[in-house]
Amino acid sequence: MLRPALTLLALVSLAQAQTNPAAAAAGQWRRTHEKAIVSEFVEFLSIPNIGTDRPNIRRNAEAIGKMLQQRGVTPQIVEFPDANPVVFGEIRTPGANRTILVYAHYDGQPLDPKEWVTPPFAPVLRSRSIEKDGQVIPLESATYPLDPESRLYARSASDDKAPIMAMMTALDSIRASGTRLHSNIKFVFEGEEEGSSAHLGQILAAHKALFSADVWLICDGPVSQTRQQLVAFGARGVTTVDITVYGPRRELHSGHYGNWAPNPAMMLARLLTSMKSEDGRVLVDHFYDGIAPLSDTEKRAIAEAPAPDAELMKELWLGATDGAPKKLIELLQLLSLNIRGMASSRTGAQASNVIPSTATASIDMRLVKGIDRDTTVARLLEHIRKQGYFVIGSEPAAEVRLAHPKVARVTGGGGYNAVRTSMDLPISQEVIRVVESARGPVVKVPTMGGSVPLEMIEKAVGTHTITVPIANHDNSQHSFNENIRMQNLWDGIELMAALIAM
Amino acid sequence: MLRPALTLLALVSLAQAQTNPAAAAAGQWRRTHEKAIVSEFVEFLSIPNIGTDRPNIRRNAEAIGKMLQQRGVTPQIVEFPDANPVVFGEIRTPGANRTILVYAHYDGQPLDPKEWVTPPFAPVLRSRSIEKDGQVIPLESATYPLDPESRLYARSASDDKAPIMAMMTALDSIRASGTRLHSNIKFVFEGEEEGSSAHLGQILAAHKALFSADVWLICDGPVSQTRQQLVAFGARGVTTVDITVYGPRRELHSGHYGNWAPNPAMMLARLLTSMKSEDGRVLVDHFYDGIAPLSDTEKRAIAEAPAPDAELMKELWLGATDGAPKKLIELLQLLSLNIRGMASSRTGAQASNVIPSTATASIDMRLVKGIDRDTTVARLLEHIRKQGYFVIGSEPAAEVRLAHPKVARVTGGGGYNAVRTSMDLPISQEVIRVVESARGPVVKVPTMGGSVPLEMIEKAVGTHTITVPIANHDNSQHSFNENIRMQNLWDGIELMAALIAM
Repeated sequence: MLRPALTLLALVSLAQAQTNPAAAAAGQWRRTHEKAIVSEFVEFLSIPNIGTDRPNIRRNAEAIGKMLQQRGVTPQIVEFPDANPVVFGEIRTPGANRTILVYAHYDGQPLDPKEWVTPPFAPVLRSRSIEKDGQVIPLESATYPLDPESRLYARSASDDKAPIMAMMTALDSIRASGTRLHSNIKFVFEGEEEGSSAHLGQILAAHKALFSADVWLICDGPVSQTRQQLVAFGARGVTTVDITVYGPRRELHSGHYGNWAPNPAMMLARLLTSMKSEDGRVLVDHFYDGIAPLSDTEKRAIAEAPAPDAELMKELWLGATDGAPKKLIELLQLLSLNIRGMASSRTGAQASNVIPSTATASIDMRLVKGIDRDTTVARLLEHIRKQGYFVIGSEPAAEVRLAHPKVARVTGGGGYNAVRTSMDLPISQEVIRVVESARGPVVKVPTMGGSVPLEMIEKAVGTHTITVPIANHDNSQHSFNENIRMQNLWDGIELMAALIAM
Repeated sequence: MLRPALTLLALVSLAQAQTNPAAAAAGQWRRTHEKAIVSEFVEFLSIPNIGTDRPNIRRNAEAIGKMLQQRGVTPQIVEFPDANPVVFGEIRTPGANRTILVYAHYDGQPLDPKEWVTPPFAPVLRSRSIEKDGQVIPLESATYPLDPESRLYARSASDDKAPIMAMMTALDSIRASGTRLHSNIKFVFEGEEEGSSAHLGQILAAHKALFSADVWLICDGPVSQTRQQLVAFGARGVTTVDITVYGPRRELHSGHYGNWAPNPAMMLARLLTSMKSEDGRVLVDHFYDGIAPLSDTEKRAIAEAPAPDAELMKELWLGATDGAPKKLIELLQLLSLNIRGMASSRTGAQASNVIPSTATASIDMRLVKGIDRDTTVARLLEHIRKQGYFVIGSEPAAEVRLAHPKVARVTGGGGYNAVRTSMDLPISQEVIRVVESARGPVVKVPTMGGSVPLEMIEKAVGTHTITVPIANHDNSQHSFNENIRMQNLWDGIELMAALIAM
């Protein structure tokens, strides 16, 4: 076994592996400024950042602008009709003949505050994760340096404000240590990533020169479950679809109509069951047709990547996985179809003896290179029709419901396609070298499981994208109790310093 | 065709059919006192009555006691440990040699106020149903007599405070008109019916003499969809079961784990699908084994009952029904298995790209004579096990989830069995005669679809039960926007007067 130690919680010492002076200086800076970093980060996380909350979104953009300004970078707030602003900043380096652009997003996933242990926009420091019974450490009485296993809990603590904080701190260190830059640097902070980057393509196209760069480094997503640094050369695409099926016009008493009135929850269960086999294979016709094959380098990277599947199952209390015996990293190179939410009438204390009137499922489908978003949605629609449904894109009128035994309202689509940058490109090889010099051995992933709007970036500004995440894998991003492990933020600061100075 | 007019909204004139003097006097009384009746009813409906809301439940019991007292009936509040109080009242009629007991319940189904157009405990009068665009009529400016098609909206407007209001008004009329009673009359108002009458059996057993009667008339449920009066000689039993299946310990990012981490929503969909065939037949082994056969009188009653299925489908916007070509009334004589609610993660604006951690369905099963509640639950549990699940009755620990590919937590049970009183008994025949004298031709149903705790009543006090409902079928009971059509309340007053005077 030539691989480094892979146990999930092992803290791999990087002291020997770190040969990058910008990263070393950033580490030094961080160790003497932890309190100020946490204080600034907590203030930033306290600004609510749900994409539809326009006033607070603007406060976030302004806060980022201020953070840049304080580091000597003049911010530019890029506006576009109906869009949340993009915050831009630039450092021109005398004599540099290339431009590195670092990207992060400042909006967060929608949420239900009731599900959170502490309010999502009142950041809380805990000694460990909640799952490990981490206790709250009041910020005013925290002792520095912090335990590297402590965590900050807040929406976007990981996804995706941590990279923004890491970049800002890297800038502080670069300025204080007099670290020399070798490239022009651009900063882009998007405000609609969790809304499928609805306007990013248009915004980039409208300001092509502003956003042009030799490479876009996408700072989003988690590192390996082994806690090793990870570099991803692509990301799955994504599209989401909401399906509502219909029973009686109004909820009915389940005694007086049960056996006779069709139950939409049961109809939906049957429809969803038809979409996947018991072992997780999608049964929609032609779903997997057109996947672009992996190159030899990509196949090798997958084979060499750690496979912490067994440890992950233990961590996640899973007695089985879909797609076995294939490993997680292999399965992420394929399309997926996932029920992200499902609802019909009420459960728990509010449940009552009714036949529901409607049942809804929200589905996301992850796409891989070679697979088109719209084609995939069309294949799913065809599948729903094959199950006997009349498919409609809006709320069906009484006549429609009366005319068809089964009616499904399907809305959504949108999203974007997958992208995969060749690992054999010189810029790809150089990013790997720089990241390894800062963070030691790197897990190289052809396509990461999550989605970032790489396609529209590449199309709009004609560049390559490479993803360099910093968050811990167990950060609960997109869910309640999102958090960042402090050591991941510290590592991220060093990584960002190395990339900015590359 | 010997049947009366069956169109759903036909107002059948009962003037000629009504030969019952008590009912006639009650009709007269109501026409001159509508405003006072509505005012008292609104006050009663304004008291929240969810069974777990103990302080308000007590206020309801006290309000009923006061209503009885005002009509010269001394109320008795019957207490039992941990139970909501039962309100009892009695009229001893000199020379009477039998006792008629009328029963209703004052608790209402749980609810989610967000689903209601107007708050559930702030009663609102509308010119028609909400579905027919009925407009709000401010109570202070309503003109009397009210349009009989107007409706009062509130939790328990139908289920089951309307019969209580009808009994009280019938008492007013009986006292004012000097109508002579022929039986001893007992009133019983329960406060836990929507909680499966958890303590009723024990309460009755503890006060057997108090609650003894020649017949219990259960005033609950809706009349026929044709608006004809209905008498039911039994009711389906009911038991409810909550099923939760498990995916990863915490919600996971659907990109980084989709295809690999089992999705509990999909698991639940598959499990639910396994329980029923596409045409609505329950596939649980032995589910239908043991049903008591119908007598010739019962078969004839079903054959003679109106079958408004086609009109109902139109009213409910249904393009198909389960169990076709069997009619609604036939299907209600069978067991049912119904998903009353289903939930996993979030849908709509709060949906996020996660693999949910759990998925839950709440199921109610309606039982018929000959089928035991516990046997039915055991059959369902066996079915779940046959689908590969490890079944547990409490939240499964990490070790349990790790040891089994599929884990289902199943809780619930409880409820009660079905009861069917012979239509050939003298008391059955007499009730039919009295009801027909008050309300014209009657739809006779061996077993109504809904459930009332007849079994524990019959067991505890050794009597027969017959159900005489008054609510409109389209009352949204058990759901949001519950309502009573005014004409149904008016008809109910006449019916109650006839039964009390019988």
